[in-house]
This record gives sequence, structure tokens and C-alpha cells, in this order.
Amino acid sequence: MSVNTSFFGELLTSITEQGRALIEGRRARSSEEPLSALCEKLLSGHGEASGVAIAEEVLATYRRLQAPERLAFFRTLYETFGADTARVAGLARRLADNPEDPVLLRELHSASEPRRQELIRRLNLAPGGTSGLVAMRADLLQCLGEAPELIEVDRDFEHLFSSWFNRGFLVMRRIDWATPANILEKIIQYEAVHEIKGWGDLRRRIGLEDRRLYAFFHPALVDDLLIFVEVALTQEIPGAIGPILAEERAQITAREANTAVFYSISNCQTGLRGISFGNFLIKQVVEELRRELPNLKTFVTLSPVPGFARWLTRDLADGEGVAARLLDPADRTALETGSWLGDEAQGEALAAPMSTLCAHYLTQEKARGNRPLDPVARFHIGNGARLERIHWNADLSDNGLRQSHGLMVNYLYDLKDIERNHESFAATGAVAASSQVGKLLRQLPDPKQTRS
Amino acid sequence: MSVNTSFFGELLTSITEQGRALIEGRRARSSEEPLSALCEKLLSGHGEASGVAIAEEVLATYRRLQAPERLAFFRTLYETFGADTARVAGLARRLADNPEDPVLLRELHSASEPRRQELIRRLNLAPGGTSGLVAMRADLLQCLGEAPELIEVDRDFEHLFSSWFNRGFLVMRRIDWATPANILEKIIQYEAVHEIKGWGDLRRRIGLEDRRLYAFFHPALVDDLLIFVEVALTQEIPGAIGPILAEERAQITAREANTAVFYSISNCQTGLRGISFGNFLIKQVVEELRRELPNLKTFVTLSPVPGFARWLTRDLADGEGVAARLLDPADRTALETGSWLGDEAQGEALAAPMSTLCAHYLTQEKARGNRPLDPVARFHIGNGARLERIHWNADLSDNGLRQSHGLMVNYLYDLKDIERNHESFAATGAVAASSQVGKLLRQLPDPKQTRS
Amino acid sequence: MSVNTSFFGELLTSITEQGRALIEGRRARSSEEPLSALCEKLLSGHGEASGVAIAEEVLATYRRLQAPERLAFFRTLYETFGADTARVAGLARRLADNPEDPVLLRELHSASEPRRQELIRRLNLAPGGTSGLVAMRADLLQCLGEAPELIEVDRDFEHLFSSWFNRGFLVMRRIDWATPANILEKIIQYEAVHEIKGWGDLRRRIGLEDRRLYAFFHPALVDDLLIFVEVALTQEIPGAIGPILAEERAQITAREANTAVFYSISNCQTGLRGISFGNFLIKQVVEELRRELPNLKTFVTLSPVPGFARWLTRDLADGEGVAARLLDPADRTALETGSWLGDEAQGEALAAPMSTLCAHYLTQEKARGNRPLDPVARFHIGNGARLERIHWNADLSDNGLRQSHGLMVNYLYDLKDIERNHESFAATGAVAASSQVGKLLRQLPDPKQTRS
Amino acid sequence: MSVNTSFFGELLTSITEQGRALIEGRRARSSEEPLSALCEKLLSGHGEASGVAIAEEVLATYRRLQAPERLAFFRTLYETFGADTARVAGLARRLADNPEDPVLLRELHSASEPRRQELIRRLNLAPGGTSGLVAMRADLLQCLGEAPELIEVDRDFEHLFSSWFNRGFLVMRRIDWATPANILEKIIQYEAVHEIKGWGDLRRRIGLEDRRLYAFFHPALVDDLLIFVEVALTQEIPGAIGPILAEERAQITAREANTAVFYSISNCQTGLRGISFGNFLIKQVVEELRRELPNLKTFVTLSPVPGFARWLTRDLADGEGVAARLLDPADRTALETGSWLGDEAQGEALAAPMSTLCAHYLTQEKARGNRPLDPVARFHIGNGARLERIHWNADLSDNGLRQSHGLMVNYLYDLKDIERNHESFAATGAVAASSQVGKLLRQLPDPKQTRS
Repeated sequence: MSVNTSFFGELLTSITEQGRALIEGRRARSSEEPLSALCEKLLSGHGEASGVAIAEEVLATYRRLQAPERLAFFRTLYETFGADTARVAGLARRLADNPEDPVLLRELHSASEPRRQELIRRLNLAPGGTSGLVAMRADLLQCLGEAPELIEVDRDFEHLFSSWFNRGFLVMRRIDWATPANILEKIIQYEAVHEIKGWGDLRRRIGLEDRRLYAFFHPALVDDLLIFVEVALTQEIPGAIGPILAEERAQITAREANTAVFYSISNCQTGLRGISFGNFLIKQVVEELRRELPNLKTFVTLSPVPGFARWLTRDLADGEGVAARLLDPADRTALETGSWLGDEAQGEALAAPMSTLCAHYLTQEKARGNRPLDPVARFHIGNGARLERIHWNADLSDNGLRQSHGLMVNYLYDLKDIERNHESFAATGAVAASSQVGKLLRQLPDPKQTRS
Repeated sequence: MSVNTSFFGELLTSITEQGRALIEGRRARSSEEPLSALCEKLLSGHGEASGVAIAEEVLATYRRLQAPERLAFFRTLYETFGADTARVAGLARRLADNPEDPVLLRELHSASEPRRQELIRRLNLAPGGTSGLVAMRADLLQCLGEAPELIEVDRDFEHLFSSWFNRGFLVMRRIDWATPANILEKIIQYEAVHEIKGWGDLRRRIGLEDRRLYAFFHPALVDDLLIFVEVALTQEIPGAIGPILAEERAQITAREANTAVFYSISNCQTGLRGISFGNFLIKQVVEELRRELPNLKTFVTLSPVPGFARWLTRDLADGEGVAARLLDPADRTALETGSWLGDEAQGEALAAPMSTLCAHYLTQEKARGNRPLDPVARFHIGNGARLERIHWNADLSDNGLRQSHGLMVNYLYDLKDIERNHESFAATGAVAASSQVGKLLRQLPDPKQTRS
Repeated sequence: MSVNTSFFGELLTSITEQGRALIEGRRARSSEEPLSALCEKLLSGHGEASGVAIAEEVLATYRRLQAPERLAFFRTLYETFGADTARVAGLARRLADNPEDPVLLRELHSASEPRRQELIRRLNLAPGGTSGLVAMRADLLQCLGEAPELIEVDRDFEHLFSSWFNRGFLVMRRIDWATPANILEKIIQYEAVHEIKGWGDLRRRIGLEDRRLYAFFHPALVDDLLIFVEVALTQEIPGAIGPILAEERAQITAREANTAVFYSISNCQTGLRGISFGNFLIKQVVEELRRELPNLKTFVTLSPVPGFARWLTRDLADGEGVAARLLDPADRTALETGSWLGDEAQGEALAAPMSTLCAHYLTQEKARGNRPLDPVARFHIGNGARLERIHWNADLSDNGLRQSHGLMVNYLYDLKDIERNHESFAATGAVAASSQVGKLLRQLPDPKQTRS
Repeated sequence: MSVNTSFFGELLTSITEQGRALIEGRRARSSEEPLSALCEKLLSGHGEASGVAIAEEVLATYRRLQAPERLAFFRTLYETFGADTARVAGLARRLADNPEDPVLLRELHSASEPRRQELIRRLNLAPGGTSGLVAMRADLLQCLGEAPELIEVDRDFEHLFSSWFNRGFLVMRRIDWATPANILEKIIQYEAVHEIKGWGDLRRRIGLEDRRLYAFFHPALVDDLLIFVEVALTQEIPGAIGPILAEERAQITAREANTAVFYSISNCQTGLRGISFGNFLIKQVVEELRRELPNLKTFVTLSPVPGFARWLTRDLADGEGVAARLLDPADRTALETGSWLGDEAQGEALAAPMSTLCAHYLTQEKARGNRPLDPVARFHIGNGARLERIHWNADLSDNGLRQSHGLMVNYLYDLKDIERNHESFAATGAVAASSQVGKLLRQLPDPKQTRS
């Protein structure tokens, strides 16, 4: 180990210290001036001389607002912090006549930028500004239902956040049992897929040799996480979540593992919705694990199928879909009442048709843009992964049964196929799938037959 | 001292390690494909699946180009990575009719964004990408003389860099004798005002109790500096640079000082030209020093007047300006030949008229936008500082004599006046000045008189 | 914040990494050779060439031993790794004739050093050796009951540990909610006075602004603690532990506090018994808190009286002591049955006599060396603190009732009196006490009276 | 990279900060009391309550003493801080009669410990105490010439330092160009074998891929080094120092190297004379390099032969030794005058006899204890290395010519032979040597022949 990194590490520590000190020390200083006036001041010449102070004032004042006042503030951003429409119209007219004039083009682009964007950039001057802006956008997203026109304001946040949270600025770190408790506490709170039931459960997920957790951080978001993924190191592709999370189980050493299973991935910041990290995180974790543990050959998820049950209900209601052809009335009753859970024979009888339906759902049912209807499939298939296996009886938690009748699936990340899969998906919408899934799909009956 | 910060510090250290490892490990992998084709690939769907890899390839390939090829590449960026002009023109026509339509406005703004911007954002996916892009812009700036139209490409870099190098993302650190040598080496190399003559000279500037050096860093620019300022702690406002830099001098303890003198400020990255940090750095250093050393009451620069001699020559040549009125032919000869340097009486005789002329030059001579002609004055006056004192015989180095006949000045940063000074400057172009400078200005003869 | 410290910090990090790697990697390598033969080898010339490897082998082999084998090993240390008695006797005879000969004196000192000491020093060559030796001594202490002669072996451990764990080598750190979980877990496990009931309880003790925890660490004991003290910042001297530990309570800011209460101090390493740290820790925490929070004026403990109930029982049984004079049969029954807990009047009636008895117990009842019988009093009074207040109804936990009938006391650390108190205690055994305690003592009846 | 280590690293950083702050802040506080009285106070009961403060006072007062006062202080340590001789004599008489009584043995050992030892341990309570004590011993060593009896005092320092600077407490770190300048400055200052000529020379020794420098640190010696070794990575065993240190030379990558050359090893602390680190440092560097660069197969020194020229002069003067047999008068004159340096033929003629004589000197000429006369040979051979090669014309620096007529040698560290070499050396004094050296030795003429 070389000493190269200490200066830089400590250097960056300053962000935190300065950030915290300032955030805490200055919490109180909000302003009596109306927020919009403060914002105008920040955009004016004053902002150049005292930008940091005014930005702090705006953010502190905003933090004290109640929900209705926040909505009003966003409306002001929408109405009075847009572009100068008269100027844009004038330039637009000139450009219509000189469509190739580069200077005109640039002026038009610049004039059509909503003033909000510069406002947001200047708010970022404040210590802790980035964090305050991410929180502000989270509030804004909640207002969209009531005030859909605010989507225009949201686009400006999204545009800037895409630039600021560019993958080049993110830092990946492994989280383990020697990580500070204030970070770990957030892991417990943010886990969105398989709830972490206290510190003992957390320790089992990060403190054992065959379990890993990796997260993305951003230097300006002091002590907070962007996204994290939980990994189990195993000796085979797992078919159920229970054994992964079990309190008592046989452990292996990291070197004995040949398979890395991504069994949970959680976004942490509502205010960063739409900024994609997951794709990069999974791929970087794959690279990191391959480097550290050359014995690992298979990288695979163990994923929920969150939209399956809803789709199935709809498809059955429709009466003409594939579901109706595969499930007879007794099957449907068993699914509705959950009676199969206590009846082994019934459960086994459902395994084949339900797996086939799941294969159909994930590969054939599409949302707009020819992308998979299922959001998790959309994510992994979009990343270039392949639908590898489908497991019946895989997640019998309340949530698992409600969302997918207990089904789970594996998506396989094979680095050498990722680009080809992605391209073919982008071109044709084709969902890459294993031969095992192909076999299931061939079980689908002709449209003519119905089992009712 | 609390332990709060270690995780974060170490977390960020990862950037460096990962960054270095990858940069070094992958230096070689450039591509045989033409750069423009690679760039198109990065912007296409492929970029989504394999963005990091393609971005690395583009940057590695670029690094291997010779100057003429680089110019050609920038031309390609200009010609084929702009906006879709047909689409923009269509939208412009529609907007001309509906100037208030927010969706149309946004579409136009978005369509008029040159494709280069997204390209630059995607290049930043590569490890070390930010650093590579800053270097690329430094090359680009060198091409502007030959190909002025590339200013359009430069605007795109500048726009994104302004956002990425936002003050909220910068980290200030003190540099001292316990700083790693690889950073210190860069300080020696980057110092642009008063050359550092080796490690002994450097040690005298950072290793003594009454000397400080502060710098801004950015997390994504591994081990490199953005800007730094050198500070001397003194017991009076200094009137010459020699005693500040002297090898042998009486030291004081930090607590004994009442004055902090900013005697050198150096930008380090050509590729970040136009992105302003200096303003923020000086103000943050003032705050930091006030917190640490409450005895400090005065914050002042000791600055060169780099444009003075050139202006004086012009003004004298003109024959009608103020210079002609204050300097008689003997004075001019003494200045031209430098004879006053060896002739004390002659030197003293020049002190008054030269100081007056310098006061005139700094406060009255303006560039476009009603801003001071002198670049250093432009910077400090624009920041809200006040021209405080003018010193004859202050910098007798070759450079000092050539640029300003040995004159130096102090600009005073008084936090409580900064905003007012800045505003009044912004409104009227008025240069804030002390009563001492006011007195000098009142020495200016009537326009009618000429001393020739 | 200066950058001075990063290199050193990171430098020391190496211990940990190297330590962990080696400890883990080498766990397995124990030896088939008898331990005593290995120890002889380590002390011989082989030890010079391959000391590290042999030391590791000894420690690994030791770790695999069962309790009876460990006892046997300690017996070997006692019997065959002492001094060369023949040589010592020879030197002793010569010295008896030349008692002032400095060389002879040194030779005798050196020859009379048990070979165990050099053995222990050489075992410390192994990575993780210090930690292994501390664990070994913990085992040894358990054997003393069965084999009291091993006290001679223990003395050698104690002698070396006193030198190695000299205060000059200890590092004090504040522990808070941003401390790594693996350290915090140990805090939960080691707390010996007021049990920590899970992570929520821990967070209340370290994660709030008016609570602190400080610990001593030693560089060679990777990730482990030596001792820690818990502090509450308050606005008055507290009279009961309940409000300090309450889940719901009014918090104050650190600046509002004028009193720091040391309410729990726990030694963490059985193997370091007899090596005193607590004294230094409390004093250093006092200094640290005074520097950080100048408003703090009072530094006081809230301490149990662990030997009180046992002493009272004995004193009552004796029938002639002070207890018999102050407590009538009804009081005794109330205490024995605990009936006063549910009977307010009875409780109040006991307050005065029980406080007086406690004051008597702490100031008058002595163990050998004229030191207080109560171990906690012995510690604080020995450190120069003063017995300040006695509280009835202060700790109604099972443990508190069993040990001290619910009484607690405050010892006051007043830096300016510490040395005087200590001296007077050292000279005369006098226990420093406040006037309030003095008043209680004056309540003690004449020896003639008995309340029965 | 895991996050395990940050807490610990930062934890230890505290030593430095606290250490520096205290050392600096308290520099002034020396005492008017005589040092010996202060020392008595520190050893008395006062020391228990106020040990830290008194220890600081002693060290501060000592630092202000002039050389003669220091000598006087050491004499006091010798005379009045020894053991209680009367008590020792009494115990010695008792033990003479009961030589096996373990308690008596321990009491004698304990009573015969000079009080100085406890004094030194208590001085170590002061912040920065270890560092102050190491400096004190450096002073003491200088007094030994004048006052040889002080060796008894020195033995006490040495005994304690051996324990405190036990290999288990040392930390090895690589030093490179990213190491803080204040550490690097000490490397320049401490290099004792091949002088470092400024920062450029240093950079060539630590900033290039085929050069390494490793050092041992101790946590209590803030920012200071104990010992360091410089390593060149090469593709063959080098036969001269010039090419290693050359300003211009062909570099290789670390992976291309098969040989690691230890070409300089320097002890940094006079006050730690006699405490051996070098042995451990070399072996740990070998392990570290093997782990990092598996291509390295050969670990070898390039060492001076500092005692050769002196021995040769003596041996020639003697007239009966081996030198006289191998060198004829012309050879001797050439050596004395250095004429061979400008005369290639003469130089070549000397190569064989001088190499043979050097082989003889290193393997046959012994000091007491049957150890090599040459101090460098004594060190490496004692560590278990083997004399591998002898090079004529290898170090033509002034120092090289004066000490060894320009000869240098390689000692080979072959981990698998180290123990055997060491043992055989310990048993018989046999110097392990390569067959090449064996051949040279066989060139030695019969004792009868003399070439004069």
C-alpha cells in the first residue's frame, strides 16, 4: 500500500467538516424577505459579490416553509423564472430565416434556457447547497400530482442533476461492519426490496465473508448514499430469497464462491429520480468482484417481478389472454384464496403454468417504447442482462405473494454479451432470454385453446 | 476532534485510487476507429450499455493525436456535433407563433443544445474523464487563434465546466510543509506571479508560522489544484514584495499578526479559463483566517499592476494624455533607460508623479463594459475590494520593472463594504478607493498643462 | 484545519491492515512441537533469525490449547522459565560483600530477571502479538485460583504491560454515532456499569449533543478498546441515574451545559487488570471538555457504591457497629424485604440514616493500606477527587438495590484540588469530602447508643 | 478496498495532533526547581496524581540545560537514582541461603532495579515524552567518552527502549513522491550511505517505478523515522553504485524486474543505538515486495566494505599477513597514491588480488565473539545473508576509495537459507559465501609465500 492517497482523502474530508459546520451553524438564518425577491437578488449583480450568503439565505428560508408555501414557491419558479419569451420569439424569428447561423443558434439556445437553471446553479454555491436542492426536488415531485405544469420546473432540476451526478463524479465504496453507524442506519432505512429487520439482520448482510454491500456516494452529499446493491456470494444460482436472508445458514469463504447474486438494489434519494446510477453500479461491482475474486464466474440477480400479479389479474379479467388459456377455474381460486400455500399438490400443479405465464409476462408484455411492462425487467434488460431463470415458490413474504404470487427470477449479467443484448433490445425490443426460459415460452398454448 | 469525518474522507480516497489505477492501466487502449465514429457511437444507444468503455476509448485515442489532428477533431465537433438545425428551425417557426408555450419553449431549448454537450457529458463517464476534458479544452483554446469559429465549441466546454466546477463542489485546503511533495511540486510549477525558486523558497512560503497558502481542489481532478493564494501575516500593510519573500527576515507568531496580505494568486488550469474561483477563494480564506486568528483586522493584497507600463507608453506616445502632463522629458528618459534605478534623487523625483499616474490608470482607464483596463484591478475591484495604497519602488524584479516600473498596490478586502463596493461598481463603474488614493488623484494637473 | 496529520494517520493505518491480514492469514499455522520447546527455540539463537515466525507459531499453537493444557503451559512458564537460580545465588553472594559495586548490581538485576520476560518480549514480535499476549494473561488470571503460585508469572506480564501500555502510548478518542459499528458493538458488550440495551440505547448515549463517550486505544491492539467513560452534559449535579438514561428527556445544547457528569467508566480488557488508565482518562477528558466547552464549570461523577450493602449486612450482623445504632429493627426488615420501595413514608424515613451510613462507609471503612473499602471510592479518592454528595433513591435497578440499596454518590474532580487531596490521602488516608457529607457524618450517634 | 481501516487510522492521527499541540503549547513551561528534586517528586506520590504535568516539567527543564548541566544531570541519575543498595544487599544475603525461593528472587530482582527505570517510565507520561527521552539518550551517549561510568544509566535507557521499540510496535511504510515534504526532508538529512544531493536526487530515488524506499515508524515518535532502506528494482545483480544513482539511465517497469537491490540502509535516531530494526525491516520489505511483484526472484544488497582499507593498511604494515603475500610493492604504491585510478592496466592488475583480499577480509578476519570484523558484514551475515559477489571498481566516490579502495559487495537474502546460515554462523562463526567467493578464497597463496 502506497501513501499516495492520504492527502487527497483528507482533503476531501474538509468538505464534510466545513459542510457540517456551516450547515449546522447557519440553520437559523432564514430571511424575512420574500423568497422570490431573494432569488432575484441571487440572480442579479448582488449575487456575484455575496452569492454564497444569499444562496444560504434562500435555502434556509425555503426549509422553513410549509407544504402550501412550497407549492406556491414552485409556481413562482414556473411562472416568473422561465426564459424571456419576447426575446426568444425575436431570436426564433431571426433563426427561422438563418437556420445555419451558429451564433444565432447559440443565442437562441442560451436565451431559451429558463432562468431557473442559473438560479439552481447559484443556490449550489451555498455550503450544503447540493443536498438542499436534492431535498427541494423531492418536495417538487410530490407537487406534480396537484400541479402537473410544474413538470417544466422539474425538467430543469433533472437536467442539472444529470450533469452534477454524472457517473464520473460518483464514488463507489464497499459498506461493511466497520462502516460508521450513521451510514449503516441509512442502509437500514433505505432498503426498499427486502426489509432489514434491525442491526442483527444488517450485520448478517454486511459482516459475513459471503455477503457484500456496495454503494455510490457523491462528494457533495455529505454522509448520504445515492444507491446501493446487496450481494450474496454462493455456489449456485439461487432460486429463493429465504435461504439468502436466513438467520442460520451454512457460510462459505469468499474464495469458495463461484456466483455473485445481486439480491437487492435500492435507490436512496427521491430527489434524484430519473438520474440513472444502477446500471453503472452493477457493472462496477461486477468488475470489482472479478478483480478481487477470480473464482467468480456467474453474476446474476435474484429479482422480484413486481408487476406480475397485477398483470395476471387484468389478463384473467380480460378472458381472452394467455392466462385464461393456462389456468383453469380451480387454479384461479387457489391463487385468489392463497389455498395453494397450504396444499403441496396444488402448489406443484401451479408451478408450471405460473412459470410459463411469468416468462410470457416478462418477455412479451410491453409498455410504450416497446420496453418490458415490468419495471425491474425494464431495468435489467435495458442494461443488457438476460432473463435466465424463473422460480416458483421463491418469495413467500406478504409482499412477494401480493406482487408476484411468490415468483422470483434471475437476470444474468454476462459482460461479453451485454452490449449485444442491449443493441438487439434497442433495435427490436427483443428480450434476451435463456434456453430454459425459451422452453417455458414454448409451453404456451395456441390462442384458440382456453382452459375454463 | 470527533471521528465523524473519517469514513467520508476515506470514501473519497477511492476516487483517487480507482482513478489512478484505471488511468494508468488503460493508457494504452486507444482505438483504430476514427474518433468521430467513436463519438457517434458514444452518443448512440451503444453508449448506454458500454458508455464507460467507449468514453475511455475516445479519450485514449484523443491523447495520441498530434496537434493538427486535434485541430481537425475540434473542427469536426464544430461542424457535425452541433444542433439539428432543420429541427431547430421548424421549432423556431412554431414558437414565433406561440411565444408563451412552455413545452415548445423547452423543446426549442433542448433541440438547440449542440450535441457536443451531451458528448462531453458522456466522455465524463470515463475514469479520469474530467481531467481529460480539462486538458482537451486547454488544447482547444490554443486553436482559437487559427480557427476562431471554434469559440462555439469552447462555449460548450465552458458552459459545462461552469456547472461542474461550481463553487459548491470545490474544496479548500491549506497547503503546508507536511503536504505531499507531488502537490508541492505543482505549486512550484504553477506559481505565476512571484516565481518560486526551488524547494527552499517554497519552504519559506509555506513552512513558517507567518506564511500561509490555500488552494481549491475538485474531487474529480485527482491530485491537481485549481487555484491557490499565498498569504503573509504581518503587522502592517506592506509596501514592497522584497521583504515578504526575503530569505532572511524577522518572523512573527501567527497571533502577533494583525494583517493578512494576499501577495500572490495563481490559476493552475488553462483548461478552466473563464471559470471563476479566485473571488470565492479569497473570501473563504478571509473567513478561515478570521476564525483561526481573531487578531487579524486587515485583509489586503500586495498586487502587481501588470498593464501600467504598457498603458503609460501608449499614453505618452499619444502626447495628449495625463502622462504627458506629469512627466517631463527627463523623467521619460529616466524611465526608458532605467537610469533612476541607480540614481536615488531621480528615483525620488519620480515617486510622486508615477504614483499619481498609477492611481489615474487604475481608477480612470477603462476597458469595455466600463471595467478597469488593468486585469488585476478588474478582478479585485469586481470582487468588491477597494484600491487602498500605491507603492513606488515596490517590485524591482525584471518583471516588476517591465510591467509597472516597479509599482505595486494594495487592494483592501473589508467584508462589510464588499457588497456596497461591488454594487456601486456594477451600477456606475466607480472604482472604490481610499482617501490616500483620492489625494493622489487630486494631484492630477488640469488637462491644459503639459510638462514637455 | 491543516494537512499535517494525514500521513501519520494513514501510516498507522498500516498496522491495522498488516495486522489483520497476517492474523487472519496465519491463524492456521500452529505447530506439532511442544510449546515449551518452541519457547526455548524463540529464546535461543534461532529466535534472532526467525523470531517473527517462531513467535507466530507459539501464539497460534497456544490458541489451540484447551484450558487444562493452558494451565500446564503456565506451570511450565513458572517452573522452567524463571531465572538461573544458581547464577543468581552466586552473584548474590558476591554482592553481599560488595554492595556498592554498580556492575555487580546490574548483573544481579539482569540475572534475576525471569527468562519469561524476554520470552514475552519476543512473542510480541509476531503480528498481533500484543493482542495475543493480553488474551493469554486473561487466561492466566483465571488460573490463579487453582494455582496461586502462578502469581509470579502474572507479575512478569504485569511488569511488561505497565511499560507497553504506558500512558504515553495511549490515544484518546471520542466515540460518537459516526464511529464504525464494529467499535460500537464492543462498547455495548463492554459496558459494565449501566447495561446498554441495544443500538437505540447506545445512540442515546453517543448520538445526542449532551452526551459524550471517550475511550483510550493502543496502536497495537487493533480495533479494540482499553477503557471508556460515558459523560452527560447537564445543568446541575444529578442525583439519580434514571433521568440520565431515560429514553424521553429534555435535551440541551452542549453550550448550555455547566456540568459534566461521568456516569459510567468501564475497563475493557481483563488481560490488562492492574494497569491503570482510568485516572488518566478522566483527567484528559476533563481537559478536552474544558477546552471545547468553556462554560463547563463542574466535573463530577455519578457513581455506584458497590460494596455498601454487603458491608451493611456485615455491620448489622456484628451488632456493635454504627449501623446497629442508626437502624431500628423495622428499618432492617424494610431493607431486607424491600418493602420500603412500595411505601413512600418508609422510604423517606430511611433516607437520612442510610445516607449517613453511606457517608460513614465511604469515608471511615478502610481496607489494607488505609484505603477506602469501597472499590469505586478507592479509585476516585485515590485520583484526588472529593466525595461530594450522597443520594438516596438514586438507582432502583436490580443491581443498584442489591449492591447499595439504591444509593449513589457524586465524586467531584476539581483540578485545582486534585493534587492536594491526593497528597493528604496518601499521607493520612483522609478521604476528601464536601461540607454536605461532613454534616451527614456529624449525624452519627455516639458509639454507646444502639437503636434496637 | 474495504473501509475497515479508517477509524483506526484517524484514531491514531490524534496522537500526532495532541502530541504536536501539547509539545508546542508547552515548550515554555520549564521549572525553577532543581531537576533532581522534580525527578524525586515524579517518583513520589505526587507523581501519581500529577504525573503528566511533572513529567512535562522535567522534560521542558531538561531541554533548556546546556551541555555541562546535562552531564551533571546524568551524573545525578547515576549516583542517586540507582537501587537501594542496602536493601539489595540484605536480600542478596537472604537469597544466598534460599536460592530457590521464588518470592525472594522476585523481590531481589525488583529491589535491584535502578530507580531510574521507573523515572524513565514516568517521564514517558508526558505528551511527546518518548521523543524527549530518545533525544535525552542521544545526549547521554555523547557523554560516555567523558564519563564512562554513565554506561550504567545508558543500560537502563536501552533496556526500556528495547521493550518500547519492540518490532511488534513498529509500522512499515513505503515512502514515495506523494509523501509529505516534512518526512522527505528527513530522508535527505538522515541518508548515511550514499548522500542525497537535493530534491531532484531524492525524486529519482522514490518517484520512479523501479525505485523504492521503505521505512519503520513508531506511533509515539510523531512524524519521525527510525530506519529506512532504499531499493532498486533491476534485471541483474549490480556490480557498482554509479549506475544505480545515475541521473540519466534506462528505466524499467516494476513488473520487468527480477532482482531487488538494497543499496542503502540508514538508521535515523542516535538515541536508539543498539536497538535493532534493520534485520526486521529488510525481511519485511522482502516479503512485501514478493507479494506485490511475484517476478522478483533475487534479493540482494549492494554494500560498502567500510573497514577494508583500514584492515589492509594494518595487515600490510604487519608484513606477515595475507596482504603482503598478494600485493607486491608496486601494487602497494599504486594503492597508496591512487595512481591505478588513471591507469587502466594497473587497475586491472589489482582487480584479482584485491578481490581475493576482500573475500579473505570479510570471511576470515574476526572481531570478538567470532563475528566478522567488518561492521556491514557483521550485520548481514548475522541476519542470515550470504556473501555473494565482490566487485572491484564499484564505488569510486571519495568515501568509497578511502574506505575500501572502491570495492563493493553483494549479500544475498535467500529466505529459505536464512535460518540455516544464521544457525551455522551462530554455532561456528562460519560466514556463508557463494561458490564465486569460494573460488576467490582458493586464490589465497600459502602462508609461506610473500610477494615483496
